[in-house]
Amino acid sequence: MNPLVVEVVATDGAARSGRVLTPRGSYQIPAFMPVGTRGSVKGLDSADLEGLGAEVVLANTYHLMLRPGAEVVAALGGLHRFTGWTGHTLTDSGGFQVHSLRPKVDDDGVTFASVYDGAATRLTPEKAVEIQGLIGADIQMVLDVCASLPATPEVLRLAVDRTTAWAARARAHHDRIEARPEGQALFGIVQGGTDVVLRGESASRTVELEFDGYGIGGLSVGEPRAQMLEALAVTVPLLPVDRPRYLMGVGDPVGLLESIALGVDQFDCVAPTRAARHGSMWTSTGRVNLRNAQYARDTGPVDPACPCPTCARWSRGYLRHLLAVGEPTAWRLLSIHNLTFVLGLMDDARSAIALGKLDDLRARTAEIWDR
Amino acid sequence: MNPLVVEVVATDGAARSGRVLTPRGSYQIPAFMPVGTRGSVKGLDSADLEGLGAEVVLANTYHLMLRPGAEVVAALGGLHRFTGWTGHTLTDSGGFQVHSLRPKVDDDGVTFASVYDGAATRLTPEKAVEIQGLIGADIQMVLDVCASLPATPEVLRLAVDRTTAWAARARAHHDRIEARPEGQALFGIVQGGTDVVLRGESASRTVELEFDGYGIGGLSVGEPRAQMLEALAVTVPLLPVDRPRYLMGVGDPVGLLESIALGVDQFDCVAPTRAARHGSMWTSTGRVNLRNAQYARDTGPVDPACPCPTCARWSRGYLRHLLAVGEPTAWRLLSIHNLTFVLGLMDDARSAIALGKLDDLRARTAEIWDR
Repeated sequence: MNPLVVEVVATDGAARSGRVLTPRGSYQIPAFMPVGTRGSVKGLDSADLEGLGAEVVLANTYHLMLRPGAEVVAALGGLHRFTGWTGHTLTDSGGFQVHSLRPKVDDDGVTFASVYDGAATRLTPEKAVEIQGLIGADIQMVLDVCASLPATPEVLRLAVDRTTAWAARARAHHDRIEARPEGQALFGIVQGGTDVVLRGESASRTVELEFDGYGIGGLSVGEPRAQMLEALAVTVPLLPVDRPRYLMGVGDPVGLLESIALGVDQFDCVAPTRAARHGSMWTSTGRVNLRNAQYARDTGPVDPACPCPTCARWSRGYLRHLLAVGEPTAWRLLSIHNLTFVLGLMDDARSAIALGKLDDLRARTAEIWDR
Repeated sequence: MNPLVVEVVATDGAARSGRVLTPRGSYQIPAFMPVGTRGSVKGLDSADLEGLGAEVVLANTYHLMLRPGAEVVAALGGLHRFTGWTGHTLTDSGGFQVHSLRPKVDDDGVTFASVYDGAATRLTPEKAVEIQGLIGADIQMVLDVCASLPATPEVLRLAVDRTTAWAARARAHHDRIEARPEGQALFGIVQGGTDVVLRGESASRTVELEFDGYGIGGLSVGEPRAQMLEALAVTVPLLPVDRPRYLMGVGDPVGLLESIALGVDQFDCVAPTRAARHGSMWTSTGRVNLRNAQYARDTGPVDPACPCPTCARWSRGYLRHLLAVGEPTAWRLLSIHNLTFVLGLMDDARSAIALGKLDDLRARTAEIWDR
């Protein structure tokens, strides 16, 4: 019994739109998932996310396992009750955050120092499954090994082998444990850096383990976009058509559309909200840096073409002021704008796929964002 | 022509409830005014304030004149357009913030160093009027001299004399300038510390100048509450019944109700929102310190008796977590709760006055908050 069923409504080349049916309901694809690192998208609450029309929100296992602790989240009713969010949720495995801390990795798992108090913390594929079971998202991800790019062939090979071995252990353990929501989905993760042969091997070996969906990890970590797309192009066709395909950590407009064109269904990225907190606004005409002095007396909205509550009510001048003096309200209002932009881009992509016009949308978007 | 008309609907002893009619509409009294220091109540936006039912919001001239500058606020359409707030607004004169910076005060004005860049800044009664004219609130306050308590008789006397002289200059200048909203009200400020004779003198001399309303300043600056109430008791009866009476800087539940009982109409204070950002929640059963470990796994709302959106949706455990990890969403959600509490207390006070039962409300509140 698959907890997730992909219902494709339209295709355009390799791109597809439709929805993923879940025990909770459904979410539309292509989907962008805002990142609620510690149980909230920075500055926003779950009512804001409803207003934005977000359908899936990601939370970071790494952060929640350290603060407040997975058992505390479970005691508070699990991630949905905890955050007051009735939409879908996904937790990453913690692997990516751990990776960036340069942990000690062995065949059995990883050991890293907590960012909160430096305490040595151990994560194994089984423990990641258990922790995510307690946190209780709709979708959990296997613990993987993510290599920094560029990497030597040996490093990439080891990352793929360990990721595959850990995926098998996670798959078995997830079937076994009871302390998780019924119908919780488990996604495997394809690694292999930008090596297309290794990507293919990793995809095939992961698919053999029969996951409920597939993450594509280890990309968008500094490599040129062309290399990322090349790796994607060999990976996606190897993934089963009836399972969601999730490209981890991509959220820039062009990257999103190029990946959708290759058949990716869902994405997460902190970029839209992080950029917002620094005043970098994503608009229909490209990036607007609100910190520029030219906006100090600007009475217009961030983006005249934007339907978000921030653009409806506040001027560039006001928002720039709040940002300049460090008012947390700025982070919130600007994040609402940037998320509206990215979620709107997903709407546009779905419409374009339905009309067979995704190429036009890609071209327009690239013209604005890659110039 | 008075821009403000006090319409008393009910009295209970010296206490009164009703509304203040203004060129913009009206606001109910007794009123609590949330403080939007730099043009936003920290973490909230003006849509949140509408949701809370706030009717008057205070902004700090001191902060806005330095960042973004009064001319910038004016260029962006004035305080209401700037903040997207259609309710009433009041700006303080900057005197209180300047006071706490230990400025150089002479007969003509004050010189202080900007907290932003240390630049020497000069404020005179006339300049305060002009700046507040540009900022464009519905109500502006005269520049006053606020003495720290305890103070010597000489210091208090000088503060009263200068405040009165400056009030006369402000009054004349406000009548003269054109760069302000039509119908903008100007409030005088009564000083005199806890010296009841000086308070009486300051009240009489200020009233002689015929302001649109009267602030009572220099209280709630560390003196015992009984002394504050004694000073209020001699001041309020000297103020004209047809003008609003505004006690500056008071916002604790008992202080609010005791002052209302003496005839005060409106208040501002950062305490409810500042307390919220530190996890000190104001509830129907008194203070709840969310930082306490006992709330880590508490699935209940901050206050089961509270109608606010925070209590409706999120648990003490979740809010405590957000606070503990420093998520700005915590400041927002907890401020919404505390402001709901204080604004609700004003509702309760108005109802109690209408029923002639303010004494009961005072007794209940004192029992909870002074124990």
